[in-house]
Amino acid sequence: MNDPIKIAVDAMGGENSPNKVIKGIEIHNSKNSNIFYNIFGNEKIIEPIIKKTNLNYKNYKIFHTENLIKDEDSPLSAAKKGKNTSMWQSIESLKKFESDAIVSAGNTGALFVIAKLNLSMIEKIDKPALSALWPNKNGMNVVLDLGANIECNEKNLVDFSLMGAALHKSLFENEDAKVALLNIGSEEMKGNNIIKNTYQLLTDKKNSLFEFKGYIEGNNIMDGNVNVIVTDGFTGNVALKTAEGTANFITSELKQALNSSLIGKISSFINLKNLKKFKKKLDPRLYNGAILLGLDKPVIKSHGSTDEIGFANSLEVCEKIINGKLIDKIKKNII
Amino acid sequence: MNDPIKIAVDAMGGENSPNKVIKGIEIHNSKNSNIFYNIFGNEKIIEPIIKKTNLNYKNYKIFHTENLIKDEDSPLSAAKKGKNTSMWQSIESLKKFESDAIVSAGNTGALFVIAKLNLSMIEKIDKPALSALWPNKNGMNVVLDLGANIECNEKNLVDFSLMGAALHKSLFENEDAKVALLNIGSEEMKGNNIIKNTYQLLTDKKNSLFEFKGYIEGNNIMDGNVNVIVTDGFTGNVALKTAEGTANFITSELKQALNSSLIGKISSFINLKNLKKFKKKLDPRLYNGAILLGLDKPVIKSHGSTDEIGFANSLEVCEKIINGKLIDKIKKNII
Repeated sequence: MNDPIKIAVDAMGGENSPNKVIKGIEIHNSKNSNIFYNIFGNEKIIEPIIKKTNLNYKNYKIFHTENLIKDEDSPLSAAKKGKNTSMWQSIESLKKFESDAIVSAGNTGALFVIAKLNLSMIEKIDKPALSALWPNKNGMNVVLDLGANIECNEKNLVDFSLMGAALHKSLFENEDAKVALLNIGSEEMKGNNIIKNTYQLLTDKKNSLFEFKGYIEGNNIMDGNVNVIVTDGFTGNVALKTAEGTANFITSELKQALNSSLIGKISSFINLKNLKKFKKKLDPRLYNGAILLGLDKPVIKSHGSTDEIGFANSLEVCEKIINGKLIDKIKKNII
Repeated sequence: MNDPIKIAVDAMGGENSPNKVIKGIEIHNSKNSNIFYNIFGNEKIIEPIIKKTNLNYKNYKIFHTENLIKDEDSPLSAAKKGKNTSMWQSIESLKKFESDAIVSAGNTGALFVIAKLNLSMIEKIDKPALSALWPNKNGMNVVLDLGANIECNEKNLVDFSLMGAALHKSLFENEDAKVALLNIGSEEMKGNNIIKNTYQLLTDKKNSLFEFKGYIEGNNIMDGNVNVIVTDGFTGNVALKTAEGTANFITSELKQALNSSLIGKISSFINLKNLKKFKKKLDPRLYNGAILLGLDKPVIKSHGSTDEIGFANSLEVCEKIINGKLIDKIKKNII
């Protein structure tokens, strides 16, 4: 048997933690063997929760930390709280080679800053990017950057293409990575100079990791013709959040429409199974987990408001990234 | 009785024209009196269609044009085709004070360029913007810019706030206009310098047309707390198209889920009325029509792929804008 994968878990971040974190570990552990969890947080709170689970003490170790970073802390004040927080300690365990990847459902800005303070950038990558999974008709897109960098140059966007493709290949090894640049038209003349120059660079410099498919417009993101969507952090953040808002709007309007009459309620009830299938396909917990790319260790951000199922899926993303050798893939393919 | 509102109609633009255009005029005319339509296009094609409608010859005049601008024409080649196209002539009829507003379902880029060549900018407005209606929980948002300007400075974004608010007040006179800047966080420190400076300008310079409500994130666009959303043309275009793509994705997944079993089909059938109500609320034809703001006459772009109902709604937008004195509202409130 191989050495187990070691995942550092910040148990104190996000709503309803450490409860959802520990239950998420239990769910993940029940489906995956050969994983070891280094759990960082307040042991007085964590231990009673763990006792109620089926977790075997051979599969985890608790590292007590007195402090924690709050959602309302600014990245700077979070970094100042420093060493004795669960977030800092869990990231430091990567630096010490005690863990292979880290998951936190805590403060995104703080996670970003503390990770950058503690870990090294992959050589030749200038800026880290925040990426996430986004469903399309045929599977999943990787989309980046989602807000780490408001302004990006050509080199950054080329790096993001490479890192996004490496992430997609790590998660879905049987699929080909197909990269597209988010733009406001599919013609070559559209967009600003940075996008046009990036188009040229990606066209000229062939590589074995991904196929470059040109520009994509917002309405085609979910068509499934490409699976890695590259943009600057401002545009990516707006696009992702707009999609989220639109999905919420539609499902709430739909719910209202289906509940607005007795016959509606009855037939929705009959139709429950199909609607559940629909809901499952769109369940954001299934693709929960933003991945910070560009550092020499995998840093995974679970959504602050997710539950134990969502957190378990973030652990799953961690595992796949390590098994898929994400960091190696990026290093080997730097353009 | 007041003089009729005169609308210049480019009959030759968009899919299935002039058929949908003439039928759209018929629908609009049946609900609205005191409108006169100046119809520009090939009379040999238009006349036989008009004869099949209930339109009274006192309500329209056909202006024959030999040429037309195609969707695949570049804006430059469209402008070169020039004077004898239905699009050029219909815009020129505004310049000659023969019409009060123009609607076209044709090539957006060409409409933009030909309008700029023929019409004057409103004094003190530097750049025109493309705006559109976007539903929210309580009614409709005006969103701009949607692609006319890839890069915008502070002055442009302040102008867009004013023009968007004027448009909202013209369309929905009983509602207060509430402006927000699209950003990637609601805190004041987020965003690039242009957005931060615009925030400051809008906070400092009070005006009687709208209330400035600060920043808004993509996921809150449809919440209904504000109704005028301001951003640069790149971000606005990506956001609008991403929302469109997400809505299409969800409705097609939903359809599939509801049709995937016999019981699903039966109960969907029972539920038809509610689903229809849902569909109607999201029907893009209901808010069809992008409005080019900043020129001293109203220029309305109907969606190329819309049908006669959508085109009739664009005519309705025209009428409301003229009755609501949009251009006067902008001129009186320039900051």
